[in-house]
Amino acid sequence: MPKGCDRVRFDAISVIPAVFEGYVSASILGRAQVRGIFEFHAHDLRTWTHDRHRTVDDAPFGGGQGMLMKPEPIFEAVEAVSAMAQTKPHVIFFSPCGKPFTQRDAERLADYDRILFVCGRYEGMDERVYRLADEVISLGDYVLTGGELAAMTVTDAVVRLLPGALGDAQSPVDESFAGSLLEYEQYTRPATYCGLEVPEILLSGDHGAIDRWRRENAIRRTALMRPDLLDGADLTEGERAFAQGVIDNREQGEGGC
Amino acid sequence: MPKGCDRVRFDAISVIPAVFEGYVSASILGRAQVRGIFEFHAHDLRTWTHDRHRTVDDAPFGGGQGMLMKPEPIFEAVEAVSAMAQTKPHVIFFSPCGKPFTQRDAERLADYDRILFVCGRYEGMDERVYRLADEVISLGDYVLTGGELAAMTVTDAVVRLLPGALGDAQSPVDESFAGSLLEYEQYTRPATYCGLEVPEILLSGDHGAIDRWRRENAIRRTALMRPDLLDGADLTEGERAFAQGVIDNREQGEGGC
Repeated sequence: MPKGCDRVRFDAISVIPAVFEGYVSASILGRAQVRGIFEFHAHDLRTWTHDRHRTVDDAPFGGGQGMLMKPEPIFEAVEAVSAMAQTKPHVIFFSPCGKPFTQRDAERLADYDRILFVCGRYEGMDERVYRLADEVISLGDYVLTGGELAAMTVTDAVVRLLPGALGDAQSPVDESFAGSLLEYEQYTRPATYCGLEVPEILLSGDHGAIDRWRRENAIRRTALMRPDLLDGADLTEGERAFAQGVIDNREQGEGGC
Repeated sequence: MPKGCDRVRFDAISVIPAVFEGYVSASILGRAQVRGIFEFHAHDLRTWTHDRHRTVDDAPFGGGQGMLMKPEPIFEAVEAVSAMAQTKPHVIFFSPCGKPFTQRDAERLADYDRILFVCGRYEGMDERVYRLADEVISLGDYVLTGGELAAMTVTDAVVRLLPGALGDAQSPVDESFAGSLLEYEQYTRPATYCGLEVPEILLSGDHGAIDRWRRENAIRRTALMRPDLLDGADLTEGERAFAQGVIDNREQGEGGC
């Protein structure tokens, strides 16, 4: 459902719901919550268990190490949490076999009114629960103890794109990935620190020259550090030739960030 | 420095040091801390400012939106925190222009005695601070409000690989990325839930057949969802042909996770 005028609602289902509080209430996210830009509700998966031990995991069929998250509490939790607000949530699961998360996904998710994260723990989840997912996201090619950090990461990446979330309304534009290039090098005072100097051009006051330097610097860094991003980047023919030249000379000892 | 018998020490420098507490003290990480497997110390960057307003940021040279983190507090903080223990830390910065973090990096970092994270906020950091870095890591192609979630993510990925951190000593082996394949589908009780059934073979007790099914399932999922991982995967010639067959038939509507 496209976003209306109301605050965006995030829900997370987890066996350690307390871990979200510190992060989503601090700093930029905390201020955005106070301003009514979003709200975040963490729910204890064990609420939807029915045994004395509040069991959420069980041994895998077919043998193997570790424990898997059982399907029943997750099915019940997603249904119950979905019903907690009028808008049906966009349901996100996390798995290494999901789609790798990128800035484009953050931009796309920033259009939803309501997002529900289901955070796994233990060795993984019973495969059947994934049919509850509107999408399955992978945060990267590494293994974590659970999906909670992934949920916080997606929340952070999405909330900062919501109108008014950052102090300066224009901040999200001029940065890495916005145009598929890494961001140019930046410097602030002092102009000399411990013998390290700021590039002279940045002190010149010549804004045309500074813009050209920054553009070239961003292309050079991207070519050196992340040539894979160049394919999707919006470059002129001349810029593309320049990037190729940087790549061809890379062996000769140029550095990245 | 290679890891000795002592607990691993993590330090993080941040303007919001309180956000780490909830996560690193909960669940698996919390238990690993109690067991003496690692310790985590968060430090407020503002400790190393010298003005009344404890300023850590300033406007960029050459103009532009937002604020940059100043070099002086970061240089001072890294020096001071490094001196807090005998072992010199491996210093990690986070930036979209860093090396994309993978499970292999987690394994490599698990060999250090001491890791120090420097977490940026605002629009970025003065470029000169990166010379303090032993490595610069990118968590993925997305933009966050700061490096704190990245530091928690790397801590989580590394700590779970430390001996004794997970209850079951063998758990880190049999999972996605360990052999560059996604993990096979897993199921637990009940065998039927809401009409959804567990694959019959997993209930057969035939462990040879189950192992073959799992291997094939892992290759199939990887071919469908992350064919880019196949190049680095340890596959027989027959398995590679099978993976290619899955890819060739993908258009015909097979699903992933």
